[in-house]
Amino acid sequence: MPADNLIDGRAIAREVHAETESRVATLKSAGVEPGLVFVRVGEDSASKVYVGMKERTAAKLGIRSETTVLPEDTPEAELLKLLAKLNADSSVHGVLVQAPLPRHIDETKVFSTVSPSKDVDGFHPVNVGRLMLGESGGFVPCTPGGVHELLIRSGTPIDGAEVVILGRGNIVGKPMAAILCQKSGRANATVTLCHSRTRNVVEHCRRADIVVAAIGKAEFVKADMVKPGATVIDVGVNRVDDPAAEKGYRLVGDVDFTAVQPIAGKITPNPGGVGPMTIAMLMRNTVRAAVQQTGSGVQ
Amino acid sequence: MPADNLIDGRAIAREVHAETESRVATLKSAGVEPGLVFVRVGEDSASKVYVGMKERTAAKLGIRSETTVLPEDTPEAELLKLLAKLNADSSVHGVLVQAPLPRHIDETKVFSTVSPSKDVDGFHPVNVGRLMLGESGGFVPCTPGGVHELLIRSGTPIDGAEVVILGRGNIVGKPMAAILCQKSGRANATVTLCHSRTRNVVEHCRRADIVVAAIGKAEFVKADMVKPGATVIDVGVNRVDDPAAEKGYRLVGDVDFTAVQPIAGKITPNPGGVGPMTIAMLMRNTVRAAVQQTGSGVQ
Repeated sequence: MPADNLIDGRAIAREVHAETESRVATLKSAGVEPGLVFVRVGEDSASKVYVGMKERTAAKLGIRSETTVLPEDTPEAELLKLLAKLNADSSVHGVLVQAPLPRHIDETKVFSTVSPSKDVDGFHPVNVGRLMLGESGGFVPCTPGGVHELLIRSGTPIDGAEVVILGRGNIVGKPMAAILCQKSGRANATVTLCHSRTRNVVEHCRRADIVVAAIGKAEFVKADMVKPGATVIDVGVNRVDDPAAEKGYRLVGDVDFTAVQPIAGKITPNPGGVGPMTIAMLMRNTVRAAVQQTGSGVQ
Repeated sequence: MPADNLIDGRAIAREVHAETESRVATLKSAGVEPGLVFVRVGEDSASKVYVGMKERTAAKLGIRSETTVLPEDTPEAELLKLLAKLNADSSVHGVLVQAPLPRHIDETKVFSTVSPSKDVDGFHPVNVGRLMLGESGGFVPCTPGGVHELLIRSGTPIDGAEVVILGRGNIVGKPMAAILCQKSGRANATVTLCHSRTRNVVEHCRRADIVVAAIGKAEFVKADMVKPGATVIDVGVNRVDDPAAEKGYRLVGDVDFTAVQPIAGKITPNPGGVGPMTIAMLMRNTVRAAVQQTGSGVQ
């Protein structure tokens, strides 16, 4: 069971962070301090953890960030008003509204209200459309963008590859398909998007050179679903009951790692694979937003 | 060789037109006259033919239309200025800029300048993004929208079907994939998007329940690429030399119709398949635009 087939997301994220840090330094020497605002509504515990991690990473890289916390019962109109204020504030280059939002708030409306030029999450329809159309200049959603970066930096051939994506969510599956199908030497994959209504998901997986699992089912991808030598990317974060664990549960991915790792050509550990890349791409998007908005010309 | 497996695009387009005509009548009785403006730049002969067909269809259905023709050397800025004027004109509900545009004009910029609410072609990034995200309220591009309608009205099962799309263009292939992969009883297909860099295009086609050919290669889909009983949709319009023809060429589709028709479960003729549907969807989009902009409440 060779362990040298791991795609080390933490190490690759460090590479991306180093590049971002250097761009932040250049920006600052040109008089621009990249600014990122997090908006959190209510006290969802996972959201608190995620925003906290993002804040700390921003600080490490020299990106100024602040978090606005609104109470759980904040009216939608008030959140939209806050976003309009942030859109108009030239010291704020990126705005991230942490999902999930309370049920009385329409997420679609909220994500469409963030200015496309500050939408570092890449959730605004304009940015989704630009991605699909193959236009540059928009923002790519952080998790599929991070998977793309993992594939590129791990030397996985994408051009001409058969890619099977499990899961058609708006956050990962669909934008992942949009990224990898584009006419580009960094893409050009033949993409099949599988989901809950797919009849032959096992057969699809078996023929894939690259499997991206973002289906939200614990250890769904088994050894007999993976072609020997294929690259397997695990995006899943699933909570499974575990009486032996301190919290009564543990987190597992969408891939049965122990069974699949010996067969895979390359595979992401989970944790330590895709997760760190999501934050790395968010920071990179923020610096890009600052560059675009200030016309600073930093590459 | 049974001929009863044809999907009659002309007949289905007539159905759609009848529905549109009835909605136009309802709108007019509510005091709203749907208005559509075509913008044509230069004297491309195919564009003239297409715009002429669209004008005549609009007139038949009771949609007011007019065409603005700009000279070939019109500066981009002037075209953008015209679009801004049309965007602001409340008597104009739909604006269609006929492609292709002269080379000195940036099509991407032009399509992004048409107001998303008047973008009856469905090419604005906001509408592409909404389609991808599965949001209602946007406009679906006319040709893939027409193919979707052909599938539905010909009784072709889509939910759970294996769909192979040949061609990843922004006008047909990509939005077709976006339509058919959505979580919806009218979609839910497992979609594979093939293109020039796909290695095993024959194998992909052979396993498909539905093949949509939009690859721009004359008679590319041969009999040995089609599973018996599959539905085959031919979007292609290719010019091939033919000394026997009056003009020295003839138009053929992306499917070798004579060879494939006996094997297919259902197949579109070409012409008379997808073509008429493109115009039908344009008219339907225009009426929808008028309904949305006037808040007339007509369904």
